[in-house]
Amino acid sequence: MTRVSTAPLYSAETIAIGSELLVGGRSDSNSLFIADALAAIGVEVRFKSIVGDDEGDIGHALKIARHRAGIVIMTGGLGPTVDDCTREAVAATTGSRLARRKEALEGMAARLAQWGRVPNRGQLRQALIPAKAMVLPNPVGSAPGFMLRWRGTQIVALPGVPSEMRAMMEQSVIPLMRAHLGRSKGPRPQPVTRMVFHTWGLPEAEIDTKLERLIPKRGPIALGLLASPTGVLVSLTTKAAGSKKGDRLPSLVEAVRQRLREWIYAEGHDTMEEVVGRLLVERKRTIAVAESCTGGLIGHRLTMVPGSSAYVDRGAICYSNRAKTDMLGVPANLIAQHGAVSREVAQAMATGMRERAGVSVALSVTGIAGPGGATDTKPVGLVYIGLDGGPGETRTKECRFHGDRSVIKQRAAQAALDMLRRWLIQRG
Amino acid sequence: MTRVSTAPLYSAETIAIGSELLVGGRSDSNSLFIADALAAIGVEVRFKSIVGDDEGDIGHALKIARHRAGIVIMTGGLGPTVDDCTREAVAATTGSRLARRKEALEGMAARLAQWGRVPNRGQLRQALIPAKAMVLPNPVGSAPGFMLRWRGTQIVALPGVPSEMRAMMEQSVIPLMRAHLGRSKGPRPQPVTRMVFHTWGLPEAEIDTKLERLIPKRGPIALGLLASPTGVLVSLTTKAAGSKKGDRLPSLVEAVRQRLREWIYAEGHDTMEEVVGRLLVERKRTIAVAESCTGGLIGHRLTMVPGSSAYVDRGAICYSNRAKTDMLGVPANLIAQHGAVSREVAQAMATGMRERAGVSVALSVTGIAGPGGATDTKPVGLVYIGLDGGPGETRTKECRFHGDRSVIKQRAAQAALDMLRRWLIQRG
Repeated sequence: MTRVSTAPLYSAETIAIGSELLVGGRSDSNSLFIADALAAIGVEVRFKSIVGDDEGDIGHALKIARHRAGIVIMTGGLGPTVDDCTREAVAATTGSRLARRKEALEGMAARLAQWGRVPNRGQLRQALIPAKAMVLPNPVGSAPGFMLRWRGTQIVALPGVPSEMRAMMEQSVIPLMRAHLGRSKGPRPQPVTRMVFHTWGLPEAEIDTKLERLIPKRGPIALGLLASPTGVLVSLTTKAAGSKKGDRLPSLVEAVRQRLREWIYAEGHDTMEEVVGRLLVERKRTIAVAESCTGGLIGHRLTMVPGSSAYVDRGAICYSNRAKTDMLGVPANLIAQHGAVSREVAQAMATGMRERAGVSVALSVTGIAGPGGATDTKPVGLVYIGLDGGPGETRTKECRFHGDRSVIKQRAAQAALDMLRRWLIQRG
Repeated sequence: MTRVSTAPLYSAETIAIGSELLVGGRSDSNSLFIADALAAIGVEVRFKSIVGDDEGDIGHALKIARHRAGIVIMTGGLGPTVDDCTREAVAATTGSRLARRKEALEGMAARLAQWGRVPNRGQLRQALIPAKAMVLPNPVGSAPGFMLRWRGTQIVALPGVPSEMRAMMEQSVIPLMRAHLGRSKGPRPQPVTRMVFHTWGLPEAEIDTKLERLIPKRGPIALGLLASPTGVLVSLTTKAAGSKKGDRLPSLVEAVRQRLREWIYAEGHDTMEEVVGRLLVERKRTIAVAESCTGGLIGHRLTMVPGSSAYVDRGAICYSNRAKTDMLGVPANLIAQHGAVSREVAQAMATGMRERAGVSVALSVTGIAGPGGATDTKPVGLVYIGLDGGPGETRTKECRFHGDRSVIKQRAAQAALDMLRRWLIQRG
């Protein structure tokens, strides 16, 4: 086994353990959190592995990881059942025996006592930790984690439950790693700086063209583009921020903003609904939504933001034609004349909602999410969006989306929220 | 490098390629699809790897994979930009040169011609395929895939775009693998049979107790439990279905159903909203929802099912108190007396919605999703669910959920849909 090109001190590997991660529709989100947390202290996750609940396979993955990474973070397999064999695999692979550790037992007993319980047989297994390892307390659940050094690599094992893993990363692993890297010889780790721009409305190829020749292909700053149903994510990544080489980052960030302008709806970890929420608060506006094909998705997204009850008044999911008439006062003959999926009905939905709810602005969506429901003139993916922000402030938009039912719903919701965002910015 | 315990002929590894999969909040869902598709032909994915867009790292992952798997499926890095280096990595690692392949060019040109375009420079790069490889046509996009045999292992490279990967798995890879396995010496591959039960309402520990001693710990049938915000998934997996050893599977499936009874809301790939949708269709019922803290999530889920417009009439997202009164006729003094988050208001919301919409049954949710909004007597996570199925058919339920805003919304929506499911089953 050869080491990969660069020194592994600041490179990490994650190993997610669990047969459910191999099949069965469960994807591993823990490793994304870990990658972000490590990047902030200058450690780059270069490989991720996923293995089932098999002692041999876990050991195999660990052996490979320690050859190519200075830090290995394992998640999962620390539970109380016999399936959970991360402890055994690490002990066997690193040649450490398992011992019932007092620190582990005490922390677990204290935690369970809060819930009025005592450790059962399975939970006692969770206190078996490799003798050479440092026990990492679990402030949220019963399974302790642990950390040990093996042949120059730091091995960390954490539970797979996201809330427990996160708390332990923040409270133990990151501070310990920071101290460990501080003691190491060699150059200081350089935190990875990553600027992210979320765009909606421009195809990936067009963004590529707009940003052409902006970023040198083999320079210290890398450009990334990633398309998804809710838009194209543009990123600038560098390990050299603050250094001479990375000096260009602020000017490149500004250049990306200039070239993509209002197509950027959010930066960093912000979401569309957070941006829209902040604009509504700043401009002291209230909102109501009238949804047909999106079926509640816009309401769901708006209300994902803590504190959204300050500006979200209500929503109508008017799936049937009668609901559009009852709930929003859309005239039945307007629907008969133009069809429920039409510019006219979208506008009437928005206006009806704004007037009935007495809000500052109402947003509406009507469309054909498919797979059924298309006609000769109205294909699957045809969506009309309406907005009513008061007299003289009405607008509609026709969109044609591709994809399955789920993608069309996502795109329609995103397009509607973006229309609201642009209107809020323009109208102050 | 040692081979892992069992013969790798029927074991596979996936390698997902893309720096966005290492950081940046994007998780890899392709490999779950691949694992399911391979399991159906008797091939088990035992390892998954994820690497960035780095030629050296891709090559490294490929070398490791071929030691421990008979089939390696790589996804991503076949696009037109210079970031995309899977072709180069496979060629360099396997010692094959890249050649502009006629089959690849022709397929791509034909595809682009449909859209009235000709290949550009980047797309021409996509026709560079290792000379020893078989070109796999892409029926959906422009990037062809390829397959080659290297030191006894079948290497497959597919695009990372899910729709393209799926079409190519179904149309090329699975048929080719089936033929390949058919020609191989050794025992026939045994398809992996996996039975999945989705439960709601029982804690993992209680399910564990209910299923205790049902399944021998080291037998050919494995039991899996996995908790998530929407319930606990229970699975039975065996490679021996149909054989003498696996004969017990049907009786175990029956035993799990008997022990978990109505706590199982769905089996296999079914979702709660599909199950509820089928019950509504079978029983010729229509539904309307009245959502406060879930903010539209129940409506969104119900309308994810194709054809749901046949039974979903409407929904009210009544976030403000005034909206509850306006849209559902909940008396303002009832809200003043009991609070918006109360059993009384949940019931009034459901009844108001059923009467106004004229549907068979209405479902309501009111609660505190947090992080704000709690009072001395009403903590974050307190949720009331109401159902009105007509005179004498009303019920409410008090729930106390833990977790962040997103988890509480998910649990509240799941609990409400499960209440509807149980009512539909009982009331025929």
